[in-house]
Amino acid sequence: MCQLLAMNSKKPADIRFSLTGFRRRGGLTDDHIDGFGIAYFEPTGLRHYCDDQSAMDSPIAELVSNLRIKATNTIVHIRQSDDSLLSNAHPFVREIWGEPWVFSHNGKMTIQDTDDSDPIKQGIASHYCPVGDTDSEFAFCYLLNQLKDNFEHKPDAETLYAFLTEQCRFLADYGLFNCLLSNGDWLLCYANTLLFYVTRQAPFGSATLIDAEVTMDFSQVNEADDVMTVVATTPLTQDEHWQQLAVNECLIFKDGKIDYQEVPKPPVYLSIAEGLEIAQNA
Amino acid sequence: MCQLLAMNSKKPADIRFSLTGFRRRGGLTDDHIDGFGIAYFEPTGLRHYCDDQSAMDSPIAELVSNLRIKATNTIVHIRQSDDSLLSNAHPFVREIWGEPWVFSHNGKMTIQDTDDSDPIKQGIASHYCPVGDTDSEFAFCYLLNQLKDNFEHKPDAETLYAFLTEQCRFLADYGLFNCLLSNGDWLLCYANTLLFYVTRQAPFGSATLIDAEVTMDFSQVNEADDVMTVVATTPLTQDEHWQQLAVNECLIFKDGKIDYQEVPKPPVYLSIAEGLEIAQNA
Repeated sequence: MCQLLAMNSKKPADIRFSLTGFRRRGGLTDDHIDGFGIAYFEPTGLRHYCDDQSAMDSPIAELVSNLRIKATNTIVHIRQSDDSLLSNAHPFVREIWGEPWVFSHNGKMTIQDTDDSDPIKQGIASHYCPVGDTDSEFAFCYLLNQLKDNFEHKPDAETLYAFLTEQCRFLADYGLFNCLLSNGDWLLCYANTLLFYVTRQAPFGSATLIDAEVTMDFSQVNEADDVMTVVATTPLTQDEHWQQLAVNECLIFKDGKIDYQEVPKPPVYLSIAEGLEIAQNA
Repeated sequence: MCQLLAMNSKKPADIRFSLTGFRRRGGLTDDHIDGFGIAYFEPTGLRHYCDDQSAMDSPIAELVSNLRIKATNTIVHIRQSDDSLLSNAHPFVREIWGEPWVFSHNGKMTIQDTDDSDPIKQGIASHYCPVGDTDSEFAFCYLLNQLKDNFEHKPDAETLYAFLTEQCRFLADYGLFNCLLSNGDWLLCYANTLLFYVTRQAPFGSATLIDAEVTMDFSQVNEADDVMTVVATTPLTQDEHWQQLAVNECLIFKDGKIDYQEVPKPPVYLSIAEGLEIAQNA
């Protein structure tokens, strides 16, 4: 299976602390070794670098771990699969309504096995087609085709958020579907099993990574009005409270804070062990 | 203005020799300093890295200059403009018919100044929209929209090549339009003013760069059946015969050799000085 990491912030922020821990799961503390990718929404555009090597071995992962790149939305993916094809590396990018949209998925879906009369297969035919052969890119194209078919122009945020939640719920019916999606303005997080987040704002404390012996004092690197949220498949630090998303919760962050939330009632939370086992057996 | 570099080869090949010279034009031997980008069609997928920094300063340009990446089609761009926005960095990528298409442009067009009733402006409305504000991305989107509107599925090579040539000629009517385009199978080169190529095959010789004191003996790094063509705005080596493309010639390479050629009759060739002056005043 794969793992997801993202950051959404009010002002452009540097993801390297989280990346230091997350990257180790790509070969050192875990075995998500079949690809690495990162997409930064910087103030002047999207920077998107993928590699078919593991996050620990990838020269591009090593490079970005040492560059001070600041972005308001960043999505990172480490892949675990049967192949390590470059065309299957996340995050995927497509342009819609003149905006670059970035998508990463953790899960396993049964889309490819469905027959041609299936709504998902039919939904792929119109505008966007997968380049690689992952269920993930298939789902992303499906989602974008639904948007394009239903909205000639980008709808208002409320309409868009509700539509995206509905589509994620639909896709989650086809298997295991945890995803991150961003257009640079907001960051959508959909949890089908495991996804956690932590919001950091004044008064800033410090935290130590789980996957590396690295501690960061956030008060040293942030200004009083900074706000940022980090999202990950499982918590990255050992001394912060990471809030779990409920099963099939859709959460959208903007400027570092929650802008939209859709939680099924009653909310159900899996233990990390349960979530990882479902992923393992998917 | 900008400069273009590409390589098309029978077997995946390493562009670093050409890149060593070309990169220097991004700040050292010339002043194309407003962005750098490279796209490699590797056997397992597209690797595409852009930067808003100059080719000489860019950490990503430095990285790829030291990595042995082998691709059958590679497109490189160094930018000279009024801005260095990340969203305006070439090459641009869009997916069409499930294939990633890569486009780089050198020139200046008047598309943005045209009114809404103009066919170019209208041609942009359907499927693909520019993310940045370059005339180049506008032209690329126009080209793809024309393809999508005219062909539900990818047509055969002959039909496609003729259609692309026709569209490039149409776009060249809107200003200065030299471009490189590839879907990973073939490399299209359209010369409106300046574009040169050299094909290397057995018996392999050696060559020395113009922009750097570096000599390469191609017989040491190639096998007898290797064939590759390098395309650039102006020649990169001082001791090889670079063939110039005529004004408004469309040339498509596949497996290192010419697969399609459309030369206006009689062919007109600009001197490098004339071509650079046109670019300077565009």
